[in-house]
Amino acid sequence: MTRWVYDFAEGSMEMRELLGGKGANVAEMTRVLGADRVPAGFTITTEACVAYMRAERNEPEDLAREVADALARLERHAGRRLGDPADPLLVSVRSGARESMPGMLDTVLNLGLNDESVLGLARATGNERFAWDSYRRFTQMFGNVCRGIPGERYEEEIAAAKARRGATLDTELDAQALRELTDRFREIYRDATGERFPQQPAEQLRLAIRAVFDSWTGERAVAYRRLNRIPDSWGTAVNVQQMVFGNKGETSGSGVAFSRDEVTGAPEPSGDFLPNAQGEDVVSGARTPRDLAEMREWMPHVHSELLEILRTLERHYGDMQDTEFTVEEGRLYMLQTRNAKRPAQAAVRFAVDAVREGLLTRERALLTIDPGSLDALLHPTFDPQFSFEVLARGVAASPGAAKGAIVFTAPDAVHAGEQGRDVILVRPFTDAEDVAGFHAARGIVTSEGGKASHAALVARGMGRPAVVGAGELSIDLAARTVSAGGRLLQEGDVIAIDGTRGVVTVDDVPLVPPSVNEYFERVLEWADGLRRLGVRANADTPTDARRARELGAEGIGLCRTEHMFMAADRQPKMRAMIMAHDEEARRAALAQLLPLQQQDFEGLFEAMAGLPVTIRLLDPPLHEFLPNAEDLATHIERARLERSPELERLERLLERVHEITEENPMLGTRGCRLGILYPEIYEMQVTAILRAAKAAARPPHPEIMIPLVGYETELALMRELVERAGEREGLTIGSDYTVGTMIELPRACFVADRIAGFADFFSFGTNDLTQTALGFSRDDVESRFVPVYLDRGIIDRSPFETIDQLGVGWLVRLAAWVGREAHPGLKLGICGEHGGDPESIAFFHQAGLDYVSCSPFRVPIARIAAARAAVMHPLQSWG
Amino acid sequence: MTRWVYDFAEGSMEMRELLGGKGANVAEMTRVLGADRVPAGFTITTEACVAYMRAERNEPEDLAREVADALARLERHAGRRLGDPADPLLVSVRSGARESMPGMLDTVLNLGLNDESVLGLARATGNERFAWDSYRRFTQMFGNVCRGIPGERYEEEIAAAKARRGATLDTELDAQALRELTDRFREIYRDATGERFPQQPAEQLRLAIRAVFDSWTGERAVAYRRLNRIPDSWGTAVNVQQMVFGNKGETSGSGVAFSRDEVTGAPEPSGDFLPNAQGEDVVSGARTPRDLAEMREWMPHVHSELLEILRTLERHYGDMQDTEFTVEEGRLYMLQTRNAKRPAQAAVRFAVDAVREGLLTRERALLTIDPGSLDALLHPTFDPQFSFEVLARGVAASPGAAKGAIVFTAPDAVHAGEQGRDVILVRPFTDAEDVAGFHAARGIVTSEGGKASHAALVARGMGRPAVVGAGELSIDLAARTVSAGGRLLQEGDVIAIDGTRGVVTVDDVPLVPPSVNEYFERVLEWADGLRRLGVRANADTPTDARRARELGAEGIGLCRTEHMFMAADRQPKMRAMIMAHDEEARRAALAQLLPLQQQDFEGLFEAMAGLPVTIRLLDPPLHEFLPNAEDLATHIERARLERSPELERLERLLERVHEITEENPMLGTRGCRLGILYPEIYEMQVTAILRAAKAAARPPHPEIMIPLVGYETELALMRELVERAGEREGLTIGSDYTVGTMIELPRACFVADRIAGFADFFSFGTNDLTQTALGFSRDDVESRFVPVYLDRGIIDRSPFETIDQLGVGWLVRLAAWVGREAHPGLKLGICGEHGGDPESIAFFHQAGLDYVSCSPFRVPIARIAAARAAVMHPLQSWG
Repeated sequence: MTRWVYDFAEGSMEMRELLGGKGANVAEMTRVLGADRVPAGFTITTEACVAYMRAERNEPEDLAREVADALARLERHAGRRLGDPADPLLVSVRSGARESMPGMLDTVLNLGLNDESVLGLARATGNERFAWDSYRRFTQMFGNVCRGIPGERYEEEIAAAKARRGATLDTELDAQALRELTDRFREIYRDATGERFPQQPAEQLRLAIRAVFDSWTGERAVAYRRLNRIPDSWGTAVNVQQMVFGNKGETSGSGVAFSRDEVTGAPEPSGDFLPNAQGEDVVSGARTPRDLAEMREWMPHVHSELLEILRTLERHYGDMQDTEFTVEEGRLYMLQTRNAKRPAQAAVRFAVDAVREGLLTRERALLTIDPGSLDALLHPTFDPQFSFEVLARGVAASPGAAKGAIVFTAPDAVHAGEQGRDVILVRPFTDAEDVAGFHAARGIVTSEGGKASHAALVARGMGRPAVVGAGELSIDLAARTVSAGGRLLQEGDVIAIDGTRGVVTVDDVPLVPPSVNEYFERVLEWADGLRRLGVRANADTPTDARRARELGAEGIGLCRTEHMFMAADRQPKMRAMIMAHDEEARRAALAQLLPLQQQDFEGLFEAMAGLPVTIRLLDPPLHEFLPNAEDLATHIERARLERSPELERLERLLERVHEITEENPMLGTRGCRLGILYPEIYEMQVTAILRAAKAAARPPHPEIMIPLVGYETELALMRELVERAGEREGLTIGSDYTVGTMIELPRACFVADRIAGFADFFSFGTNDLTQTALGFSRDDVESRFVPVYLDRGIIDRSPFETIDQLGVGWLVRLAAWVGREAHPGLKLGICGEHGGDPESIAFFHQAGLDYVSCSPFRVPIARIAAARAAVMHPLQSWG
Repeated sequence: MTRWVYDFAEGSMEMRELLGGKGANVAEMTRVLGADRVPAGFTITTEACVAYMRAERNEPEDLAREVADALARLERHAGRRLGDPADPLLVSVRSGARESMPGMLDTVLNLGLNDESVLGLARATGNERFAWDSYRRFTQMFGNVCRGIPGERYEEEIAAAKARRGATLDTELDAQALRELTDRFREIYRDATGERFPQQPAEQLRLAIRAVFDSWTGERAVAYRRLNRIPDSWGTAVNVQQMVFGNKGETSGSGVAFSRDEVTGAPEPSGDFLPNAQGEDVVSGARTPRDLAEMREWMPHVHSELLEILRTLERHYGDMQDTEFTVEEGRLYMLQTRNAKRPAQAAVRFAVDAVREGLLTRERALLTIDPGSLDALLHPTFDPQFSFEVLARGVAASPGAAKGAIVFTAPDAVHAGEQGRDVILVRPFTDAEDVAGFHAARGIVTSEGGKASHAALVARGMGRPAVVGAGELSIDLAARTVSAGGRLLQEGDVIAIDGTRGVVTVDDVPLVPPSVNEYFERVLEWADGLRRLGVRANADTPTDARRARELGAEGIGLCRTEHMFMAADRQPKMRAMIMAHDEEARRAALAQLLPLQQQDFEGLFEAMAGLPVTIRLLDPPLHEFLPNAEDLATHIERARLERSPELERLERLLERVHEITEENPMLGTRGCRLGILYPEIYEMQVTAILRAAKAAARPPHPEIMIPLVGYETELALMRELVERAGEREGLTIGSDYTVGTMIELPRACFVADRIAGFADFFSFGTNDLTQTALGFSRDDVESRFVPVYLDRGIIDRSPFETIDQLGVGWLVRLAAWVGREAHPGLKLGICGEHGGDPESIAFFHQAGLDYVSCSPFRVPIARIAAARAAVMHPLQSWG
């Protein structure tokens, strides 16, 4: 038979799933600090909540009996009874899920009071005001939490009572006033529910437990879970705990305390407290709390006890603690402790200090850092002290904050950049033609697209803050205006964006520059010593490459050569190549591109100074380099009506665009298919790479990567092409350079053993693998679907952000397995966006890959994520 | 140590891979008919050819010795020696691959002759003319085949010699003339090669064997293999056989004979022969051969021996035989036998007769039918009621009627085919280079050749109607005209041909769609009794559905509801629905579509009279229903310049088109994603289906299919939507209707166990699964790539035609496996184009699916293919 209730004395930290975080922590704390320090109580399990929900809000059999038994034990321990008219036991009832969901679930304090026991409490404590204040709070919380009566109904009454007495603070209300308020609150209850306020403590407890269960499916909690990827199926536990009172007078009080500074991580405890107050008063903000340091003057012995306890807890948990405490008439009680949430700088500082102090090993210290949060250390941020008004919200596509004048086109951004002006590029969406504008702008905003849109990818790759898919923005490119929320902004108006949070504002928010501090550096050093996965960067230019090395990249995992063709001096030559109707004309255009490409690669090799550089040959469909068909149609119609001599040229151009345009370019003539149809393009690129390699001061390690291979023969043919070009340049495959492929089609994973025979390396293109395996065009579905699909519970995160383990992940594992089996020396990497995502990195570590490659700014995060993965999964079946 | 050479007496039918088809068959025939009937010889294995190619055209070690040994044995057996100046042994050297490749590989006859032995041959046979004719043929073939000297060089000399002597036929040249010709041929050889014509028979043999090996990688052979999906790696065997001579005078001759009528399958032997001729004369078309029946008068005892032999061979092989024979001075020798290629009507007739005669079981009889060829039975014929004027008569070489514009070259046919034009390829004769034209043309006409000519063989193999040897046609390739009976036809003029009767006409004869004959009916009945796979049809309309039932469909496997929205009366309503900016407007438009959809389904249910009907809810991206953006842009620009009041409406329309248009619609907002975004669309469709079901006279079995599911929750949500609609209509899921999904995304296959929990059936959408697994947009790559990829040997067939077993096939097997494991009663079908492809059907049978669904006209083929699969793979691990 399932057991639904555990006393605190029976639980432990390990029982988190069953008892919830709070229940498990209180139980653990009872063990560590002793029963005198922690008010006694019991926990109703998460399983009871799940059973209650499954049974359509009916408590499981036996729950009532188990609660009654636990309550009896608690009464014996406390020496008082719930609802005893002479000297009643009071309890708190609090929710506690497996993961902390601050403010999302509900709490009832002072349960056990009724019209009789309140008098007993007054007598027993000799404090009538305290008794009525407690009863007032209970009736208020109970009505609000257990019956859904709006909080304002109660607040209005309190305000009226204060007004009648000319009081400004709650504490100025005397016992009589509080008694009257309580009467009024019970009337409110009767009016709202048609029932008398429950006087039986057992009934009060039953209703409160139900209310906590119900709060799990409440709107606030559901929304929080969606946002924080917490499964609905977990349920919440309910903690029933003997009340201690911080509101018994000037030798009582409540507070929260961190074992270290919660903002900087510095090794001084920090926190807030309020004398003569219950815990809710501290966090509600109704009264301004006092700093923990002041407690030393107020009650020195309690203060030093608290510091000692914080040290004990930190040692015990091996992590910075976030606690709640109450002082009842000079006696300190610890109500709760948990590992402290903390900003990135505090996280790295704690980790370094903890190792220095001998508190943690490097391995355990690394595990206390959430690598996802470290972004904040690498980019400017909005000043957290400054409050501002949000103009529009969008997808947090590329982290960091930026401020600048609005421009609407890439050339305008370039122009402004040349003049040294700070601008934000604002566009409905971006495409390859806009890339120069990304360089020139401080940040990017789009009204369309998702996390994997062109704008997001390019911005992340370059480390430019970006907010994309900000649908509230209505952009009129013709008028050069953007409107949102009734505001109309012109070109040149200054906006600020926070790409870490996905917000846009017109307020002049101060920006805080990033600081790579000594603590972060130290943590990165450890990570490099612990990780098994290599970390490379995706970089297309020498500038990006240099930045990547500074941030610790051990090579380039993906250089996208097509970006090189987008530069202003190359595009006309590229277009000439594409417009060519035969091989000869194509070769002529390519001959012009060859020296330019060679320069590109020379710069890249110099920047990487001998580190491996994986260069992907031309991948995108050619029509990306041609003008838009719709614009052309417009020009043609105008030329026709105006009898312009341009007409014929435009028509020819459109004809070619039609020839090249495809229904589904993602699945069309791209990748190695280009190389097979037009071998001369790849020949030119390979020649440029190899000549650049010969020209390099330090011999580089070019890894030539053939994209979109699905059949082993494709790779065999392209490998042969590369090898022939190598022979022409006097270079030897295997020693002077290697040839591999991008694995980005499901079929490639199934035949990876065959493909491996022609590959020195595989690099998983998980972006495209996600697109094909899931049938998701990232340009199309991410902005349309990801929100809806998250909302409907179909997915719990974007598959473009964190790898879809069940589908895409299986394909990766399959290909890694059969590829290595067929070719034991095969090098395995991954160069999709997932290479910078900590959770995905852990997956790639377990899948046995050799390295991940990500955008330069994610390199430090990847280093730490890789080390965490190695610490958590030290055993590898892969070599 | 590998053995490279086998005597005919050592081989057997089972050794086909090693000895090639010809070698294995000659060996088998030697066993069956006795050594006296089959000239002795030996076979050099395909492995020797493979070793030769691998060693870059170097014969494997020991090959020379093994050939010498085998030759010595042959000489002992024949009692003559190769090159013996007194009475030489002559041999033929012929290629023979595992699969027959007619006309693709090379042959050398009369090898062993030289300047001395020709005199010995003359003396020994007492026939000087025969000796010199044989030497002339040998020097000609050897120069052409072994040294690549163009055939025209020799033909020119023959023509000149005939002109000098006023002769019209080769046979009119006397010994002296032939001797002079031979001298001239040896000069040609010396001029072309700089070497003397080889006089050592061993050297002749070595070169001839090399030439056969080399012919495997010759252009013609490579092209043929591409077309016929024969792997390059097989290699060819070489058969060295003692020569017998059909050209020794009037009691000698050569011919080809089929054990039954090769066109109709009727149980009378058929064939062609030529007195005083070698085999090459019969097939070259240079002399018009005589019908086999006439042989009875020529040499009655030989004729009856031949008929007896044909019966023996047919019994032995259990299949209709295609043989070559030679009569040497009244003595019959069988040179070759093989299972006869035959048109569909002959195939079904043979199968039925063979079972009736007790020759074969139904199972074995079915295996003699190539289901792919049955298309021809489903081909049109001339309307028998229509009388027309015959332009020309020829050999009825391949059945079926066709109509189209005249083209004179294969490339023209291909070009026209790409443009969707119907053409008839008209040529004097055809060769391997023309094969692509056969695919592209509706039919083929030649003015030369017989039933065994290249044109006839290829056309029959492909199921293309063909009339060959229509000698009345005078074709002028340079002028691109053809004339007959005083009529001059130009390229582009339309003709009609009847390949079943062998006639050509310029009259506009109506073509009658095919009708299933009694033999075919019988075979289909057997198939239905033997197959395990169900066969359904893909049909969207009552007309299609009725046709499908007539052709034996057991249900509809795929009804594409979107086709219903394309009708003229629906499109405006559909557009209104799409243009709707909110749910209310959308619902209003849908309410108008509801009764129309209901009618559609009522018609379908009526046509299928209680058989299961799988209906797929709306699948394609919505923008398919909207106008083209480029056209709109043109209209808008015109409206702008002309200040048209339409401007604003057009701009609004374009804006909506932009909103809806996607980069990669194939991977975009389609399938169940539509149902999740706009549940009201699916609600309307489901309501229409269920109301139609209620209205049906015979209770139908609607199977509601949710497309493009990748996550189990998608299906769970849509199933719930369907079930709710069912409840509203008072119908019960599971009994009144079922709900399943299309499996068409790789991810769906990986999570098929989860999806199966919400599905009554899976239907594999192998078209889309091919698109996603291979990253091939069918619209884009098929025309661009498939030809190039076939040509480069990357694929050996289009993956849209025959399922890609390594990639897509694995996904299907995986999903079938885990889906059934999670849900044992799950029904599994496939509704992609592959459902009508025999090879794919065999795969689906083995993968354990329950049924295939294909286009109505493929249903009979699928029934037979499914039965063949069941006969070949009777054991199933699946239930």
